Amino acid sequence: MFSGIYRTIAYVNGLFCLYLALAMVAPMTVDYIDDNEDWEGFLGSLFIVGAVSAALILANRGQFAPFSLRLGILLVSSLWVSTSLVAALPFLLGTREISFTDAMFEAVSGMTTTGATVLSGLDDMPRGLLLWRATTQWLGGIGIVAMGVLVLPALRIGGMQFFRMESSERSDKPVARIRIFAGWLIGIYSALTLVCMVLYAVGGMSWFDALAHSMTTISTAGFSTHDTSFGQYGDMVLATAIIFMLIGAMPFTAFILGLIAGSYRRGFDSQISILIVIVAVLMVPAFLTAHGSGSFTPPDALLHSLFNVVSIVTTTGFTTTDYTKWGHLSAGVFLVALFVGGCAGSTAGGFKTYRLIILFQTLRVSIRELVYPSGVFPVYYNGKRISPEALQSVTTFFFAYVAILFGFTVAMSATGLDLVTAFTGTLATLSNVGPALGDVIGPAGHFGSLSDTAKWMLIMLMFLGRLEIMTILVLLSPLFWRGG
Amino acid sequence: MFSGIYRTIAYVNGLFCLYLALAMVAPMTVDYIDDNEDWEGFLGSLFIVGAVSAALILANRGQFAPFSLRLGILLVSSLWVSTSLVAALPFLLGTREISFTDAMFEAVSGMTTTGATVLSGLDDMPRGLLLWRATTQWLGGIGIVAMGVLVLPALRIGGMQFFRMESSERSDKPVARIRIFAGWLIGIYSALTLVCMVLYAVGGMSWFDALAHSMTTISTAGFSTHDTSFGQYGDMVLATAIIFMLIGAMPFTAFILGLIAGSYRRGFDSQISILIVIVAVLMVPAFLTAHGSGSFTPPDALLHSLFNVVSIVTTTGFTTTDYTKWGHLSAGVFLVALFVGGCAGSTAGGFKTYRLIILFQTLRVSIRELVYPSGVFPVYYNGKRISPEALQSVTTFFFAYVAILFGFTVAMSATGLDLVTAFTGTLATLSNVGPALGDVIGPAGHFGSLSDTAKWMLIMLMFLGRLEIMTILVLLSPLFWRGG
Repeated sequence: MFSGIYRTIAYVNGLFCLYLALAMVAPMTVDYIDDNEDWEGFLGSLFIVGAVSAALILANRGQFAPFSLRLGILLVSSLWVSTSLVAALPFLLGTREISFTDAMFEAVSGMTTTGATVLSGLDDMPRGLLLWRATTQWLGGIGIVAMGVLVLPALRIGGMQFFRMESSERSDKPVARIRIFAGWLIGIYSALTLVCMVLYAVGGMSWFDALAHSMTTISTAGFSTHDTSFGQYGDMVLATAIIFMLIGAMPFTAFILGLIAGSYRRGFDSQISILIVIVAVLMVPAFLTAHGSGSFTPPDALLHSLFNVVSIVTTTGFTTTDYTKWGHLSAGVFLVALFVGGCAGSTAGGFKTYRLIILFQTLRVSIRELVYPSGVFPVYYNGKRISPEALQSVTTFFFAYVAILFGFTVAMSATGLDLVTAFTGTLATLSNVGPALGDVIGPAGHFGSLSDTAKWMLIMLMFLGRLEIMTILVLLSPLFWRGG
Repeated sequence: MFSGIYRTIAYVNGLFCLYLALAMVAPMTVDYIDDNEDWEGFLGSLFIVGAVSAALILANRGQFAPFSLRLGILLVSSLWVSTSLVAALPFLLGTREISFTDAMFEAVSGMTTTGATVLSGLDDMPRGLLLWRATTQWLGGIGIVAMGVLVLPALRIGGMQFFRMESSERSDKPVARIRIFAGWLIGIYSALTLVCMVLYAVGGMSWFDALAHSMTTISTAGFSTHDTSFGQYGDMVLATAIIFMLIGAMPFTAFILGLIAGSYRRGFDSQISILIVIVAVLMVPAFLTAHGSGSFTPPDALLHSLFNVVSIVTTTGFTTTDYTKWGHLSAGVFLVALFVGGCAGSTAGGFKTYRLIILFQTLRVSIRELVYPSGVFPVYYNGKRISPEALQSVTTFFFAYVAILFGFTVAMSATGLDLVTAFTGTLATLSNVGPALGDVIGPAGHFGSLSDTAKWMLIMLMFLGRLEIMTILVLLSPLFWRGG
């Protein structure tokens, strides 16, 4: 049906959509057992996607096109769009009357592991739909790790070239290597999810809630089965969530995989320590405000401030309470938390800590160069000298990030939103966090009341954030489409 | 009294403070004629500053130390602090009971040409004090142009090295050159002020108001003699202000001086055109919101949106009306306007347009490099290739700017301010604009109700912005103080 790289792209899209459709069997079964008519929506989606996917796969079988920039960019961006369309189908075909915009918002928020939701009344929602939401985030999380380790470094997106695994640089048997990689990734990811689920259940969650929340914890994604998110759970559950959100935001999977592939590098260390440092630094004012609000005992203030700071910094987006009501300082703290993000090679989004480290190093070097004008001082990351090209990738990424943040804030305010909602809504979706600040889309609100225009802008921002911005900017450049 | 560079620094500080004290004669005379007791405060200030300055000058006369990084950095930063202290005296010693914090805030806002004010009831204020406020901004404006043309390029601060005049690179007779430069600068600056004053008076202002406003227009500074700023004036006055605010934000003075010194460079062109483009682009949504608010006829909506956009983009800070009440979109538009800033070598503050041009060029080049991984594409500014070091100055400056913006937002919110006030107050002072957004310190408010802690943070931000951030960061670095 297609030729050249488009044949490969169509084939891989068909394959991934088929896998995603097969994942509908579980929520369909749950709804069937629950005697809930939504199971028919899943069955319909399964048939539609199955037919289209099978057609795509069969019509485009054959030799893969060799890996190229164009293939990589088109593959990752088309995959996120096509799987989001598939993920939206059960929302559209279910008994709940969900509009196309809302279905797409929820699906994109799922697949990109953002966790912003337009749905309320989650506690009364069919369990199949709740499980489907968790499934999209769990699978999205795997996709992100795979993309971050296999595709983005090769594309040199936003300084991701630092995380190129040695194995991915050798071109012998790439498909076999990807298969081995995928196997280990899914195994480790599933094992972590299982441990998290058991701990949740031991902590007092129902088994269903434990499953759904463990899937959206390890993927630092943030969909809950309750409108109050983690508000009703006890200390053990909160502590478990804190640990597994942090694991999800660390390059843990890539780290283990690096060990297995025999290409362990020290490259991930300072990302991890800086993530811990950032959480600790933000914790202090968060704890003081939580404690000062008078709503908590000191241990509770500690637990709740730690939970919510970790949740936002790791771009998960679970909440236990409306922390914006603690005091004005908490708004400032969580604004910064919305920016930070997790580590490269993790399931987390956001600006990412390694970029912050590099920018701070560059600032230090610049001050040094001002003091010693005749000297030239290289920038180091993890003891390795950074090439000027890689440095430029990071600084450019930072500019693109901030420019998009301010540009979309203007566009969002044009839809009639106040400044806090427009600005933090843009930031929370671009960072793939989920809850923003303010009364409308803050920790106590949801995105349902926004206009369709605003929702589509946020959908665009979730894709931009997930695809590390530059992937989409390249796609929008005429240069990309010119020539062979 | 002092030795080495500190001798030169003490001497120059004494000289500048003495000049500033002599400038008190005019407002003192006005207050004396008005039969207002504040003239005694000016006389007292004049005596105190005169005595201290004379002592500094006499004790530290002699050969100037040769220009060095340390001398340049210490000179510009100490000059802004010492002249601000001098500027604060008449506020402290006057009949109005102004606290030390408020006096310093008003003085720093004057000398840095920010235009944020803690004072209200301006319409009933002694004319001497109003003239003094305008005088600090007018002199501050001269200082900024001189610093931007003579000192910062040689220090390579934030990419300012692009604006090094050829004459300043030759070291023969530097003092004579500075004298010639200063003469021309003061002449052209005074002539522009005079033309602006006459046009204001013709447009309907009293001669006193015309003088005070012309001094704070050409310096893109923003102090007014009315609480309503330009709210009460007619079309002719507003049109005049628009033109002279734009002139003040352009490298006009430096441009003419470059011609005179025989070192005309094309270097300033694209700054100017981009400034016009940015104003035009922001005008469209501002006009639509102003028109949509129903408060204006279409021509009035055009005039008021143009006036306020130009005022904020040029970092002047005059207002005609509370534009934040036009609609949510206007908040977004003016948030971006608060960021932009004017041209290098002008009286304007802010991020500055040439840096935006360079960052956008870098982004374009980065996209090109992603598409053609084997190519290396230089970044050009005004047709001239930018060295990697200069590029790094600009990207680092951007990071420092945004980091300070977010960092101070947290600190400001800790003083009990809401997010909009904390964030835009930080931005409006760091950009040396003046009015921020929100109800407290927006176009209809003033900074008087903030806590002393918040005011001192904003004072710090005004200095940071005025000294192009890096000057102060270098000063805070232990490296700077180490060794000879």
